Amino acid sequence: MTVSPFDHPLLSGLLGDEEAARHFSVEADIAAMLGFERALAEAEAECGVIPHEAEAAIVKALASFRLDTAKLRAGVTKDGVVVPELVHQIKAAVGEPHGEFVHLGATSQDVIDTSLMLRLRQAVEHIGLLLSENIVRLANLEQEFGGRALMAVTRMQPAVPITVADRTASWRAPLERHQQRLKEQSGRLLVVQFGGAAGTLDKLGGKAAAVRAELASRLGLGDAPQWHNQRDAFAELAGWLSLVTGSLGKFGQDVALMAQAGIDIGLSGGGGSSAMPHKQNPVKAEALVALARFNATQLSGMHQALVHEQERSGAAWTLEWLILPQMVVATAAALRLAAELAGRIESIGH
Amino acid sequence: MTVSPFDHPLLSGLLGDEEAARHFSVEADIAAMLGFERALAEAEAECGVIPHEAEAAIVKALASFRLDTAKLRAGVTKDGVVVPELVHQIKAAVGEPHGEFVHLGATSQDVIDTSLMLRLRQAVEHIGLLLSENIVRLANLEQEFGGRALMAVTRMQPAVPITVADRTASWRAPLERHQQRLKEQSGRLLVVQFGGAAGTLDKLGGKAAAVRAELASRLGLGDAPQWHNQRDAFAELAGWLSLVTGSLGKFGQDVALMAQAGIDIGLSGGGGSSAMPHKQNPVKAEALVALARFNATQLSGMHQALVHEQERSGAAWTLEWLILPQMVVATAAALRLAAELAGRIESIGH
Amino acid sequence: MTVSPFDHPLLSGLLGDEEAARHFSVEADIAAMLGFERALAEAEAECGVIPHEAEAAIVKALASFRLDTAKLRAGVTKDGVVVPELVHQIKAAVGEPHGEFVHLGATSQDVIDTSLMLRLRQAVEHIGLLLSENIVRLANLEQEFGGRALMAVTRMQPAVPITVADRTASWRAPLERHQQRLKEQSGRLLVVQFGGAAGTLDKLGGKAAAVRAELASRLGLGDAPQWHNQRDAFAELAGWLSLVTGSLGKFGQDVALMAQAGIDIGLSGGGGSSAMPHKQNPVKAEALVALARFNATQLSGMHQALVHEQERSGAAWTLEWLILPQMVVATAAALRLAAELAGRIESIGH
Amino acid sequence: MTVSPFDHPLLSGLLGDEEAARHFSVEADIAAMLGFERALAEAEAECGVIPHEAEAAIVKALASFRLDTAKLRAGVTKDGVVVPELVHQIKAAVGEPHGEFVHLGATSQDVIDTSLMLRLRQAVEHIGLLLSENIVRLANLEQEFGGRALMAVTRMQPAVPITVADRTASWRAPLERHQQRLKEQSGRLLVVQFGGAAGTLDKLGGKAAAVRAELASRLGLGDAPQWHNQRDAFAELAGWLSLVTGSLGKFGQDVALMAQAGIDIGLSGGGGSSAMPHKQNPVKAEALVALARFNATQLSGMHQALVHEQERSGAAWTLEWLILPQMVVATAAALRLAAELAGRIESIGH
Repeated sequence: MTVSPFDHPLLSGLLGDEEAARHFSVEADIAAMLGFERALAEAEAECGVIPHEAEAAIVKALASFRLDTAKLRAGVTKDGVVVPELVHQIKAAVGEPHGEFVHLGATSQDVIDTSLMLRLRQAVEHIGLLLSENIVRLANLEQEFGGRALMAVTRMQPAVPITVADRTASWRAPLERHQQRLKEQSGRLLVVQFGGAAGTLDKLGGKAAAVRAELASRLGLGDAPQWHNQRDAFAELAGWLSLVTGSLGKFGQDVALMAQAGIDIGLSGGGGSSAMPHKQNPVKAEALVALARFNATQLSGMHQALVHEQERSGAAWTLEWLILPQMVVATAAALRLAAELAGRIESIGH
Repeated sequence: MTVSPFDHPLLSGLLGDEEAARHFSVEADIAAMLGFERALAEAEAECGVIPHEAEAAIVKALASFRLDTAKLRAGVTKDGVVVPELVHQIKAAVGEPHGEFVHLGATSQDVIDTSLMLRLRQAVEHIGLLLSENIVRLANLEQEFGGRALMAVTRMQPAVPITVADRTASWRAPLERHQQRLKEQSGRLLVVQFGGAAGTLDKLGGKAAAVRAELASRLGLGDAPQWHNQRDAFAELAGWLSLVTGSLGKFGQDVALMAQAGIDIGLSGGGGSSAMPHKQNPVKAEALVALARFNATQLSGMHQALVHEQERSGAAWTLEWLILPQMVVATAAALRLAAELAGRIESIGH
Repeated sequence: MTVSPFDHPLLSGLLGDEEAARHFSVEADIAAMLGFERALAEAEAECGVIPHEAEAAIVKALASFRLDTAKLRAGVTKDGVVVPELVHQIKAAVGEPHGEFVHLGATSQDVIDTSLMLRLRQAVEHIGLLLSENIVRLANLEQEFGGRALMAVTRMQPAVPITVADRTASWRAPLERHQQRLKEQSGRLLVVQFGGAAGTLDKLGGKAAAVRAELASRLGLGDAPQWHNQRDAFAELAGWLSLVTGSLGKFGQDVALMAQAGIDIGLSGGGGSSAMPHKQNPVKAEALVALARFNATQLSGMHQALVHEQERSGAAWTLEWLILPQMVVATAAALRLAAELAGRIESIGH
Repeated sequence: MTVSPFDHPLLSGLLGDEEAARHFSVEADIAAMLGFERALAEAEAECGVIPHEAEAAIVKALASFRLDTAKLRAGVTKDGVVVPELVHQIKAAVGEPHGEFVHLGATSQDVIDTSLMLRLRQAVEHIGLLLSENIVRLANLEQEFGGRALMAVTRMQPAVPITVADRTASWRAPLERHQQRLKEQSGRLLVVQFGGAAGTLDKLGGKAAAVRAELASRLGLGDAPQWHNQRDAFAELAGWLSLVTGSLGKFGQDVALMAQAGIDIGLSGGGGSSAMPHKQNPVKAEALVALARFNATQLSGMHQALVHEQERSGAAWTLEWLILPQMVVATAAALRLAAELAGRIESIGH
């Protein structure tokens, strides 16, 4: 099934990004969830919450764990989350007498949110690299063509002469600010979620903080108090993603406008038409605009999800699942396309 | 790849709808596109635009046509649309001397928009049936429990006594209006798109109107002048989809609120928790709220896409692809969930 | 205070519409509310619910009623709605012994929603006239310049020759469909809201239906069962408004693109620049794009408000107030601007 | 005219904030614009760009400057911006021979964007104070009631016992993160915009940088290269505003849910109903949800405006005007309401 172009075998060639999408596959999600359960067992053994024999049994069982996918799907249908059935299967794999120590003190949201964080860490790192690549490419364009003349266009009308560097700087400067923004928010974002049934780690007593710190450390995430019903870090990330695609959308729009008369910019490798073989369509530039408007649209939903009632909102949480992964992939795709587009600019200005 | 829950092997168990999603698979899309090319060849032969031998050769080649998927994906990457490469492959399959008559007078957008229409026709019919089912189920609830007492709640506070029928009517009545709305807009929506390079069917001369009428008839769609750069029918459909999910979101929200204290409503089959086995979570009710807010979010993007510049906007058109199929599936999923939820209401009121 | 450009003494010269905005003034709102209370007293007297003496006293008091605005504002601050304090003031004006018959059986939402409907009826009629004017103006352009040549532009690239009529038809045809859509939805929209405390008109007993019908008739609205917690008619209207501005946004975008090189279109009266006196900016065309994107943005919020919990949602209802009036004025402004812009097209094509 | 509740004489009592709205009045805008022109004259004299006599004449004329408002409104209608006519009036007031030195090297956007920045600086400072007040109030609630028992609610169902502090912490913690976020972005945000016709300060030659630095210093803003077609700082601010209202919306939603049965929370001063005098509606809590959803809706439009074509987009820029001021006022209003609501919590928990 391929309802979303990001998952579509054909359309993802243009609109997707394989490396980013990989982190949102079922396989990656389950692997991260199993990683959470393993690290939890290890952390709890380390802190004396569960026996070391139980830890060993859990680690061993997880290493060779085989899912029953059909039951997991049925579990989601019934429970709204995959975790109860997944934990059930893991406990069965561990067997007696250690099965009861699987997932101890944790709740579904801990597993799902932390799994997402683990994968966002990688996706965001990938996006950060793509962002750097774009900055380099735009700087190269500036180096090569920056001194050439261009007619500024304000309110869609020719204005006064500028240089190519004046325009490329307006493409590059926001990307540099986005790097700074990402640095600022990463520390807030990339933290473990571990709170138990209602966020209080009630089953771990005095060892709760130590287990959480150890869990975070083993997963390579920051330690922080539970945030299961505080979704601002995700909304902030979504905003950042949309800032990136918005800036790239401006780049794409500018390129498409410059390519209209074929004078201000020279592009190689434009798209063909089934009716007009002579055309060279600025396909990547247009896709940048589409992805910018897509993310700008989605962002609204991520902020609606901030109204996350009480200790856990099934409605607001599910809404995030429907939106955030697509925003991440849209951003990676836009960065990939922008870098490719920059690479196909053969000349700008006069 | 499973970036969207609608495509996700596990999450689509809750949030997806197999029947609706089926129409957005690559297979369904390609099948509809090939159907377009066949009907076009037939219509053009019928109207004397291409020889009957060419028609026969095209129909025969399409019947046994085998795609080169990798090349189609590469084609999308380059051209932004699959059609140039697809037509190239079809022409090669038809071979000389008739290959040149494939796709004659048509353009990529004709194929893609009409393929979407053909599949929307089926998806919307499916949604219409689900809508009727929901109305029946709510009417049954009203019949069974309508006379019971309920405390009205206004502004989240107990107000005055009402009957169960008063509340169920507020769930059912909008759905009945949505049936009426669908009837009104279907005629505008389900029409062929056929305009050629820039909407004027310039290659068909005086036979343009006849070919278009014949093409529409063979595809079972209405005939209408080209609308390739007029996207109001899609935006109107998106609005209708979001009206449906919005009304179902109200139903879901009400059920979740009624289930809080476990007094006003009795539900079977609630979702389990990995930390609190005693809980019965109103998972389907919450999913209805999530899907309502999802579609309300998406709708904005479909209306942004109305600003479709000149004779064809790659940017605005691509934006539709990123949004509309998901809205259709979200609506089908919500209707499926609502019907299931209504079926699990064991009692309402007192 | 002028937070919104629609209310702004200077900016509303471009972005507002006086006639539409007039219906959202406090004065118009209060006048419609008083009209509701008068018609209610008359209808209830007619149906034998209140004495004719009470009706006469109420009608008389309303005719010379003077508001205490400061108290009304304080009432909104406290109650979230103006009606409790307004009714309090009206009752005091009527005095003993008839004051108790004011607002009998009604609730705040009846007054506020019906007042909005009364004003929407006028605003929508105004918008309908502007829509017709636009269609005429575009038809005139087609008549005058339709036969001239124009180069079609697809995906921002020159495509094949078309005529001016081909393009103007793509501006006009959606507007004609919007006329049809408005006709279809008007009957659903323009109905009275009268339900009492929780929608059941519990205080009117067997006379409820008769009073509601009489009330509707006196107000010139359709009669319909209460819809206080079913907001689909407003969301549908919002969708229609955004369809209109979206189509006009396409017109504006096209004009701005055509005016770039100053060849395809000749416009009089463009905007000046403080730095570049030689420029003629396509200000109205750009404003059309801005208003289209504004309404597309707002529409999402109106659909979020469909999740209107139980018998009355203060949250969802208040959200409508923040959005719908602005969408109405944005639409009227866009139609006004589009008509002016069409009037300033001195030539199109070659 | 009062299309927006933020401007509405009655509704702004609930939904507005006088202090924040004040900065978006015409008076405040014009005052800031005149401040820009004065500081520009001073900076240009300081840098030897204009004669000191001209500076003196301009400063003097501005001190006693009287607007012709009707002409300004007409100017906006024609030019899309108020500045050409405003500068025309200022030049006339300065008269010969110094009038020509008014606004030298600047363009409309410099004046309008910098005026907005000057006012945002004050509005954001106000919002920052309100944010601190909310944190204090929530900390006080925690101090007073934190140790009491509460039943956690997950997915709308009773879960496990927690303390009141567990819940209040989930209200307070995001606000503290928002303080940190504001600190990070303020430096990027509060900078002068000064670029001239197309961003290159072409008329100031080698003195451009010095004039800009001096201008920024005199206005109390940071100095930064022109950003007229890079709108990320505004979109980032909009995201921050919506993060704040989103977190407050969660607080409001929680309070409304807790107040349902009247057991978990005790509130004073709830809103009255015109039909049910016994009710105490959680009006402020509901308004917080409405304002959260409003800003989440608007945010999308601010990100659409990132696609700001070439050196100046009339369309994207105008879209910001329609949205950003309302988001600022909505945020201030939400913070005001949240502080009031926190102040009316007489008890939480058991």
